[in-house]
Amino acid sequence: MDQRDSEEDEQSSSPTRRGLLGAIGAGGAGLVLGGAAGALWSPRQEAASSDTDAPKTGADGVIDAVSMFGEHQAGIDTEMQDRMYIAAFDLTTKDVDEVIKLMKDWSSAIGYMTQGLPVGGTSGASDGNPVGVPIDTGEAVGLTASHLTVTVGFGRSLFVDAQGKDRFGLKSKLPEGLIELPHFSGDMLEKNRTGGDLVVQACADDPQVAVHAVRNLARQAFGTASVRWTQVGFGRTASTSKKQATPRNLFGFKDGTNNLKLEEKELVDKHVWVSGLTGEQKWLNGGSYLVARRIRMYIEVWDSQQLGEQELVVGRSKSVGAPLSGGEEFTQPDFKKKVDGEPAIAVDSHVALAHPDNNDGVQMLRRSYNYADGADGLGRLDAGLFFIAFVVDPRTHYVPMQSKISKNDQMQEYLRHTGSGLFAVPRGIDAAGGYLGQELFEG
Amino acid sequence: MDQRDSEEDEQSSSPTRRGLLGAIGAGGAGLVLGGAAGALWSPRQEAASSDTDAPKTGADGVIDAVSMFGEHQAGIDTEMQDRMYIAAFDLTTKDVDEVIKLMKDWSSAIGYMTQGLPVGGTSGASDGNPVGVPIDTGEAVGLTASHLTVTVGFGRSLFVDAQGKDRFGLKSKLPEGLIELPHFSGDMLEKNRTGGDLVVQACADDPQVAVHAVRNLARQAFGTASVRWTQVGFGRTASTSKKQATPRNLFGFKDGTNNLKLEEKELVDKHVWVSGLTGEQKWLNGGSYLVARRIRMYIEVWDSQQLGEQELVVGRSKSVGAPLSGGEEFTQPDFKKKVDGEPAIAVDSHVALAHPDNNDGVQMLRRSYNYADGADGLGRLDAGLFFIAFVVDPRTHYVPMQSKISKNDQMQEYLRHTGSGLFAVPRGIDAAGGYLGQELFEG
Repeated sequence: MDQRDSEEDEQSSSPTRRGLLGAIGAGGAGLVLGGAAGALWSPRQEAASSDTDAPKTGADGVIDAVSMFGEHQAGIDTEMQDRMYIAAFDLTTKDVDEVIKLMKDWSSAIGYMTQGLPVGGTSGASDGNPVGVPIDTGEAVGLTASHLTVTVGFGRSLFVDAQGKDRFGLKSKLPEGLIELPHFSGDMLEKNRTGGDLVVQACADDPQVAVHAVRNLARQAFGTASVRWTQVGFGRTASTSKKQATPRNLFGFKDGTNNLKLEEKELVDKHVWVSGLTGEQKWLNGGSYLVARRIRMYIEVWDSQQLGEQELVVGRSKSVGAPLSGGEEFTQPDFKKKVDGEPAIAVDSHVALAHPDNNDGVQMLRRSYNYADGADGLGRLDAGLFFIAFVVDPRTHYVPMQSKISKNDQMQEYLRHTGSGLFAVPRGIDAAGGYLGQELFEG
Repeated sequence: MDQRDSEEDEQSSSPTRRGLLGAIGAGGAGLVLGGAAGALWSPRQEAASSDTDAPKTGADGVIDAVSMFGEHQAGIDTEMQDRMYIAAFDLTTKDVDEVIKLMKDWSSAIGYMTQGLPVGGTSGASDGNPVGVPIDTGEAVGLTASHLTVTVGFGRSLFVDAQGKDRFGLKSKLPEGLIELPHFSGDMLEKNRTGGDLVVQACADDPQVAVHAVRNLARQAFGTASVRWTQVGFGRTASTSKKQATPRNLFGFKDGTNNLKLEEKELVDKHVWVSGLTGEQKWLNGGSYLVARRIRMYIEVWDSQQLGEQELVVGRSKSVGAPLSGGEEFTQPDFKKKVDGEPAIAVDSHVALAHPDNNDGVQMLRRSYNYADGADGLGRLDAGLFFIAFVVDPRTHYVPMQSKISKNDQMQEYLRHTGSGLFAVPRGIDAAGGYLGQELFEG
């Protein structure tokens, strides 16, 4: 054991998870987590100690931790990270107290991990103790916080079962917007990629940090909830900040040019954050809805199309993403402009059907990612877009547009929706304390 | 079209794929690729023009292109990139000339892509032409070369079919080392994750660049070969250079401490590169063998073990990866050291069974990656290690050790091998020209 102790000391000099433990320990700030049993957590104290004692820096020396605290959960109007790992869970318990305990455990773990710390920090009973079970699984040791955000949401099935029966005494708190999504034209949803009682979206610069986060939450859920589906997203296909360049999807086009940006605070307030709910639904104020759709792209078919056809379908140029009515990437499309008597932007192009101007002004904050999952058994790649959007109400901000797109969009010929989920995302945790979903469970 | 032309000009000023095209075009160096038809390619001219006219730089200003040219293929003794996408293909053609054409097309595409250029460069007939089909799929436009390497290999089934019959007139050239791997204890191989006539390993700093590479090669193969399996590896679990820190696998332990490093040139020559073959097998001189094994980890079971048990199984400390006989990460393990009458490193620990000292001195150059593929239908994550090793001969450098490990290693309790492949990796392309596998097909 002397061996192990001396190793710990050496590690303390590096600006990493393990090093931070040393720094915090030396400062005597004292983490308050009671170990693996999931005792109630005091996030303010934790945040304060880590903020002052040990700023987390990435390889370039820039602090790369995103705080989980605030009115809204992080991972929504946060500058979009390049990599994602998302997982949905089914609750296997029938005891709401176990669900609450899980939310407390998750909140604690998210607090540690988003600060670049191992789950449980240094005070866990088994850290370095050979007869204890490690609280953190360890594969992120040596990595920085990597702008990790973890965003948790609740599916409709948390509130009511398939027969509409109350599952955990929460039925009366089911938000009206947490509907069963309708069947959209062309949907080919797979059961094991659809639904879920809980969802966890982990985004980070380093995918190992995102996978580590979900894996540790899945571990905490053992005996309470099991993994229903997961998805690795290897590359972002949207921007959520004006500071970011617009990335490309697997059709080779820029995606998310018109996305809501965190700098557009008034628009985000209007189109993303739930507010004004009263009575039993008011727990969702400050929250949002997460729409998840796994969209398989038939890239082989797409790749056989002429450039002009691809651009007609999208309604934008492939090179820079300018609308076909002219201008630059960020020029607003002119749907009235005609060329040789025909609309410059086809009425059944993707941009025409999806643009706010043609959808009663509704906007979404998208955080979608490219995926590539393997072969499909027919010799083709199973690849596409894992669509994620945060909206104030899916009844106004997703269903109408998707209904229209799924029937009329030329792009639908090259797509199949194979997975789906809708989740109510509770507000964030204030620095004063608490846990994710507290207003739902205790309100 | 004026619109599109002016967009192209604006793009030329950025140091990206599209910008490079402008730079090279302006230099008048003239790419020689004849377009999508896959005309024979002159890589030296290509390399020379891109090297002098347009060094590729990543976000930090460092040139981030790895040349594909040289005695050996890149992607083996190359500093290991963080992300990987690997795919195996089945040939659907019976015409060896189509296989040769595919190798020429792939060689050309790899040459372009590893320099941060789109497939086909600027001279492709359809680039920017609305009635042409784009030669490159486009999703890597705007990204740098990202240290992309693409390494191609040939499976045993390229030479002989399941009945041992000659498939393409290459049977006499089947290398003796390209065996059918035996069934190892505990193997649970899935057919659709095993085998393949061809393999393509793409590694890059940016996973979008790696996926783009494989996707474009799969596209070129359409009608000649179909995708059999693929795997995304989100994080490296080995180092191939002394400059790199040792990363961690999903057991939370450092992995690859004892891996061959590119700086150990004599050891790499001895343990990785094939040499001295004569007669019909001499085409493989300068090449290697790629062993691929998809290793599912039962992380839920592992995570329930005490730290001391985990360390006993591995034979190293979890914190810094030091052998349990003492010292630091890179201290050589002392298998004779005893503590309280017992070996400090258990004889059935992973390090004891895998160490060169206990395997006739054989070493491997490993380039393995962590993977996380989804849920397994039983509520658990399907996650683990995609093992890749390059060896001079699998009969001496893989089969004996894996036979021993699969029977005796304590770690086997937490693992299942679910996929497998063995491929002969031909030598590289000299700067003088040629295509991958030329010595096999024309020798």
